[in-house]
Amino acid sequence: MDERWMGEALREARIARKAGEVPVGAVVVKGGEVIGRGRNAVERSRLATAHAEMLAIEDAARTLGDWRLDGCTIYITVEPCHMCLGALYLSRISRVVFGARQSRSGACGSVDSFHEAELFNHHIDITCGVRAEECLALMREFFGELRLDDKARRDARAG
Amino acid sequence: MDERWMGEALREARIARKAGEVPVGAVVVKGGEVIGRGRNAVERSRLATAHAEMLAIEDAARTLGDWRLDGCTIYITVEPCHMCLGALYLSRISRVVFGARQSRSGACGSVDSFHEAELFNHHIDITCGVRAEECLALMREFFGELRLDDKARRDARAG
Repeated sequence: MDERWMGEALREARIARKAGEVPVGAVVVKGGEVIGRGRNAVERSRLATAHAEMLAIEDAARTLGDWRLDGCTIYITVEPCHMCLGALYLSRISRVVFGARQSRSGACGSVDSFHEAELFNHHIDITCGVRAEECLALMREFFGELRLDDKARRDARAG
Repeated sequence: MDERWMGEALREARIARKAGEVPVGAVVVKGGEVIGRGRNAVERSRLATAHAEMLAIEDAARTLGDWRLDGCTIYITVEPCHMCLGALYLSRISRVVFGARQSRSGACGSVDSFHEAELFNHHIDITCGVRAEECLALMREFFGELRLDDKARRDARAG
């Protein structure tokens, strides 16, 4: 089932990519249903806080009419950062499943592992690597295109 | 000047308290002016993410029309949690000034100190203890009243 729900998160990530955003998507699932969706919207909204996970948590809380997300699982295409993992603890979500690692910002094992310290009065079950190749490919394509765009702009200025 | 701007954050915290929220307030200052305000709104908005700092960061980004808050200082009545400190790194804020420590959730020295690890390609200057007594007194009064309310409810049920 994890693969199926990650497919929904990937769908969100692809929509973000088409809008020129870093392609990250997330869905919150409870009782076999998607109750929250989010995709990265930092550029469009001009908010540093508009990460896919934050928007999915907030969407799910609105669906439930409650900020407590116990019994819910979030599927995220990439490893969450400190802000997002912190928000997931605050929301008391039960489980986090992510695809690709984020080597420069991931707080679930890459640059930090604060979940391992059990700092909070709440435990989150964390699974990584679900459809990781597809999640990573999306990111690589996006950043590869950005570099090509930059090169084209430099060439145009030089020309 | 820190004391003066913390007074503005305390003002926000007092408004939150009147609304029945945990009394935390924050303001973002740039060039001698408040450009963003926030106060805790978790209960009212039913969002676990509606911390004072998050709302102040977002308010400041809207004022500037840009998610980058370099050159800005945020004044917060209490020590930020992981989510909020993570958001402050993402927003590239220059300085964080807070009042009271949060022994159970503070990420700037209390339960964690991830700012010390210099994990990100950005440095934040952090000052703690500005008007700490007033900030702490607000929190203590609020939680003291909550306990009295709980006791009154228990007594009413028993009576």
